[in-house]
Amino acid sequence: MSHLSVHVPLDGGRAYDILIGRGLVDAVGAQAAALGAKAAGIVTDETVAGLYGARVRASLERAGLRCGIIAVPPGEASKSYAGYASVCDGLLALKIERGDLVVALGGGVVGDLAGFAAATLRRGVRFLQVPTTLLAQVDSSVGGKTGINSPHGKNLIGAFHQPRLVLADTATLDTLVEREMRAGYAEVAKYGLINDPGFFDWCEAHWRGIFSGGPERDEAVAICCRAKAGVVVRDEREDGERALLNLGHTFGHALERLTQYDSARLVHGEGVAIGLALAFRFSARLGLCSGQEAGRVANHLAMAGLPTRLQDVPGGSGDAEAMLDAMAQDKKVRDGALTFILARGIGQSFIAPGIGRDDVRAFLQDELRG
Amino acid sequence: MSHLSVHVPLDGGRAYDILIGRGLVDAVGAQAAALGAKAAGIVTDETVAGLYGARVRASLERAGLRCGIIAVPPGEASKSYAGYASVCDGLLALKIERGDLVVALGGGVVGDLAGFAAATLRRGVRFLQVPTTLLAQVDSSVGGKTGINSPHGKNLIGAFHQPRLVLADTATLDTLVEREMRAGYAEVAKYGLINDPGFFDWCEAHWRGIFSGGPERDEAVAICCRAKAGVVVRDEREDGERALLNLGHTFGHALERLTQYDSARLVHGEGVAIGLALAFRFSARLGLCSGQEAGRVANHLAMAGLPTRLQDVPGGSGDAEAMLDAMAQDKKVRDGALTFILARGIGQSFIAPGIGRDDVRAFLQDELRG
Repeated sequence: MSHLSVHVPLDGGRAYDILIGRGLVDAVGAQAAALGAKAAGIVTDETVAGLYGARVRASLERAGLRCGIIAVPPGEASKSYAGYASVCDGLLALKIERGDLVVALGGGVVGDLAGFAAATLRRGVRFLQVPTTLLAQVDSSVGGKTGINSPHGKNLIGAFHQPRLVLADTATLDTLVEREMRAGYAEVAKYGLINDPGFFDWCEAHWRGIFSGGPERDEAVAICCRAKAGVVVRDEREDGERALLNLGHTFGHALERLTQYDSARLVHGEGVAIGLALAFRFSARLGLCSGQEAGRVANHLAMAGLPTRLQDVPGGSGDAEAMLDAMAQDKKVRDGALTFILARGIGQSFIAPGIGRDDVRAFLQDELRG
Repeated sequence: MSHLSVHVPLDGGRAYDILIGRGLVDAVGAQAAALGAKAAGIVTDETVAGLYGARVRASLERAGLRCGIIAVPPGEASKSYAGYASVCDGLLALKIERGDLVVALGGGVVGDLAGFAAATLRRGVRFLQVPTTLLAQVDSSVGGKTGINSPHGKNLIGAFHQPRLVLADTATLDTLVEREMRAGYAEVAKYGLINDPGFFDWCEAHWRGIFSGGPERDEAVAICCRAKAGVVVRDEREDGERALLNLGHTFGHALERLTQYDSARLVHGEGVAIGLALAFRFSARLGLCSGQEAGRVANHLAMAGLPTRLQDVPGGSGDAEAMLDAMAQDKKVRDGALTFILARGIGQSFIAPGIGRDDVRAFLQDELRG
């Protein structure tokens, strides 16, 4: 089987590989056996279980591993204290020991939930990620962030726990609904916007191949994983540079919060798409980059079918004050100051701490009027 | 204020101090301020809250910190998924941010629960331990193990998370019930039995001073913390030597399991006391140490009011087969093999992997007949 590979060179015996290619779900068993595991607990959601559960289980059993499937309901609601308890207890019922593996088969919700369970089961067991959405393949399966939501907010409970291996089977994206594909694409474009203008050019030329499953898809996933891995290795705990990955996310998270995480109205990647467009228009307004570049960003995202304006949120996003309050609840807030990721141009983003509320309010008011 | 001090020289910026002395609960605020925290969430149980909550809160407020108290019901039942969720949400409601502190005020249950919440809140906030039982002062507040129980067993969910500081106020032990004091003393004696025969001699001569609150109490706590800190620094994740700290615990944990963790019948330290006596008698039976030394261990524990025989468990401990099954559920089991900590004499313990079920069964059967 031919595939691309990205190495994540973390220290302390935590380095791992990301393999990218079509058909990798059938390689889970061989890879798990190569890691010395005798048993594996497959954590997934009910939708993905129906599509790929049997194949992953068969692959593990062919390789001689004892295994079982723990399927949670699909959707963000499973990333809860109750979901966490049920996954942990499911893994314990399967008698997963310290040398065994947790296999996270699914999108970001499953990856975060299974990763957090693996981080804390018996104070840490190894886990293998099999991301089945574009978003999870380019973003949430790289970096070691795991966690669940609290009634007080998203991802407020969690741990850093690196996978031992990531198998990104790009053929699984063939079964992804179009809207989720587009949402994941916002994170793809983000990597160009952060610090790789050449990749953004390439995206403008090749995005259709990513959607249709051509070789561009594998290539894009590998480029994004390599970019994120580089950032994570240099700044694992987000004391500095890693914050750049939040380009578009300060606005995006606020929009998700204001729409009550109702995926019928807005999914994460859509919030990010609007957030990216806003971050560039806000940068242009502050005289940091040209309005032309901000326009180019919004145009490309719109071409790929993504929303780019506050008015694009079904049911509206509330007023500027509500957005400001929602941004202030972000867990990256320290002592109440707002930090944004802004840009001097496509591929020229930077961390901008201490942005004044008044500047943000005036910008958002104009956006809502426009 | 005069106090003893033990330094725990962990790497990666995780080194911390343990201060030991009378009256340290009033120093929490000054120490928290010195760590740069602006707010503190005090996690405690309802009993300890009534005894020391107001003093710790006043100390923090005097030092200019915003703070609040989260009190769980006393007892092991709070170390549950539900207890964990309520502590995390309580800390979030207090707006504890990454630079702030979680203060664990109480015994082992509170330390484990608050420590696990601190380890995972916002993927890790700092915590300060204020252990108020002898067991917590000499054992559970050193080493960074935090966690909760699952319906499948004790401490099966958790994380390694080191405190930033431990304040062991030995005057708080004046309010400890006698039975908990004795139970903690089993862990004190354990340190002598592991690798410090001179300390065991000293214990035989001075144990009454530990119970009555003389200077021997502070000295014993410091010696135990120093011993445990040394082991933890050399083997933080329990790949080797740290397992020695489980002397008496393989039997002890099995007894706790067989008595359904019903503290009316058996508390942890009582299980450990019986386990220590059994580990030495088992070692003598295997020809590793003399029966005289095994007798000396049991005599000293009995002198301090601790149980030393299976028959001492109110309601009985079940038969040998039940004990074996309970031991096989220990989370330290790998591939089903039983590992014991045995001894060639007082202060000469060692890790003995691969002990046969038949040898253990025959020993337990004789014990139950004796």
